[in-house]
Amino acid sequence: MRIGIDIGGTNVKIGLVDDRGQIVQKDSFSTDACENYEQFVQEIVDQCQRLIAAAGYEMAAIRSAGAGCPGAVNDQNGTLIYMPNIEYRNVPLGPDLSRQFGCPVYLGNDANCAALAESAVGAARDADHSITITLGTGIGGGIVINNEIYTGFNHIAGELGHIVLTVDGWQCGCGRKGCFEAYASVTGLIRMTREAMAEHPDSLVNRLAQGDPEKVSGKTAFKAAQSGDAMGLAIVNRYIGYLAEGVANLINVFQPEVFVIGGGISKEGDYLLDPLKKLLASRVYQADVPRTKIKVAETGNDAGIIGAAMLGGLSHPAPCASCG
Amino acid sequence: MRIGIDIGGTNVKIGLVDDRGQIVQKDSFSTDACENYEQFVQEIVDQCQRLIAAAGYEMAAIRSAGAGCPGAVNDQNGTLIYMPNIEYRNVPLGPDLSRQFGCPVYLGNDANCAALAESAVGAARDADHSITITLGTGIGGGIVINNEIYTGFNHIAGELGHIVLTVDGWQCGCGRKGCFEAYASVTGLIRMTREAMAEHPDSLVNRLAQGDPEKVSGKTAFKAAQSGDAMGLAIVNRYIGYLAEGVANLINVFQPEVFVIGGGISKEGDYLLDPLKKLLASRVYQADVPRTKIKVAETGNDAGIIGAAMLGGLSHPAPCASCG
Repeated sequence: MRIGIDIGGTNVKIGLVDDRGQIVQKDSFSTDACENYEQFVQEIVDQCQRLIAAAGYEMAAIRSAGAGCPGAVNDQNGTLIYMPNIEYRNVPLGPDLSRQFGCPVYLGNDANCAALAESAVGAARDADHSITITLGTGIGGGIVINNEIYTGFNHIAGELGHIVLTVDGWQCGCGRKGCFEAYASVTGLIRMTREAMAEHPDSLVNRLAQGDPEKVSGKTAFKAAQSGDAMGLAIVNRYIGYLAEGVANLINVFQPEVFVIGGGISKEGDYLLDPLKKLLASRVYQADVPRTKIKVAETGNDAGIIGAAMLGGLSHPAPCASCG
Repeated sequence: MRIGIDIGGTNVKIGLVDDRGQIVQKDSFSTDACENYEQFVQEIVDQCQRLIAAAGYEMAAIRSAGAGCPGAVNDQNGTLIYMPNIEYRNVPLGPDLSRQFGCPVYLGNDANCAALAESAVGAARDADHSITITLGTGIGGGIVINNEIYTGFNHIAGELGHIVLTVDGWQCGCGRKGCFEAYASVTGLIRMTREAMAEHPDSLVNRLAQGDPEKVSGKTAFKAAQSGDAMGLAIVNRYIGYLAEGVANLINVFQPEVFVIGGGISKEGDYLLDPLKKLLASRVYQADVPRTKIKVAETGNDAGIIGAAMLGGLSHPAPCASCG
């Protein structure tokens, strides 16, 4: 049994995860409830102890714990370097939790945890090499090589959203212009939708958003397109065009066996994947060799907990004794 | 002692490489001299035997051999899948050589061999994770993770020139538009130089090329810039701008400890590296963590032989007993 801790900007989700990567018990608390770092650590410890007791286990049954953080961590010494929205900086979260749990505690980036969850029990469970990107407000990414997260020499590799797709293009939050994230995140899709609305005030897209650019979401253009609206389809095609360029870049560099796409937009399923695969066919460098499989993420909202629990190295759980 | 075989489009260079990655004897032959695949294999074997004898060794002293090829190989089973300019396809070069040598023979892509040479005895010899790109007619690249070449699930990872920098940009030889290679290769620099020449027929750049676009080389713009010519400097700055975007992309994804730049343009040295480093400072995602070192390749024309010899796994040779 392992503990997975998914630290977010507003709340912390904790789960007990068995050796097959299934969550057997979970709970969460708001980060607002903690006045300082010491309280934050104590709240995590208290909640873990409650979960373990509720599931009928003792602390000794826990082999390891992992915490995924939406910021920078040092995965070698367990230091939480920084996170947006939470003011703790350079705190030894791994060692502090480890002392209280009496087991190893590993730290990882949240996007890496999502990739590890997909590698262990999700869409990439049958592959040794995979990449997972999460299309959200930004683009998170994780690189799995030989069933382990690759973090580079300074522990922060895998910023897959920050590869420039268009030199001097749209401003990205990272300071550069034209990043993959600026175009292929939900934020990019919303911008494309708003641009089209402004040019065509009488469109279905405008009506769906009640004429208010603030009411545009990542679903607006897809909804219009699925109703057969030409402008909706043009927006979706533009968006998927940029997504394809970014995904093809990563495939040409890594040649992963499976490329997993998660996040809200991935819920469009084949409506996203079919045109994406068509565009990729002429963009990837894979003549005369096996091709990368493109899949939608499977671990959903639990990815953070499962991936954090897997940081201990149990990338691929043992097969079930009964099902082989 | 190991054998390194550097197969090119027009000739094959072979070297005996000692355990410190130094070439002790080398020679070459023209691929035109071979009428078929069997002759090609025999010529390699004959030349290796001559080299070994000339160096005063016996075949039994050879621990392994490696061959680097400018095309696709399967590094698991030793199949040469294809090479431009040579018609052999899907031939078992590794096993065929191994039978005659009586030692293991490894196959690798030539750009990967160059990266391995830099990792073993060149500019990245002190790093476990490095990337080497070679700026030539195209852009070759190799990814070294934990002192080994990373080739992905289908053995062809590391096509670092084929990441799109500008969607719908300049046509690339790979079929996509806007690739890193289209802009930051020597071919890209020559195109930039010719474009500027056409716009400014009275420039120093024009005079250096005797007014003939066909006489432009990768050195023309650099020469003009180093003479203080504003147009030459503008071309060089434009070129280095694209180079910086591509290098920053790769750093953000991999976070290598050392990023090595080889090929003809790298001979410009600090004249290339200083402005490149300045541009990278605001483009890489490395706040609060150690930064990647940018270096010029050191193994030069011998990179192919040394890297091929290193394919056997001797990534980092043992330190010298006398110098430590």
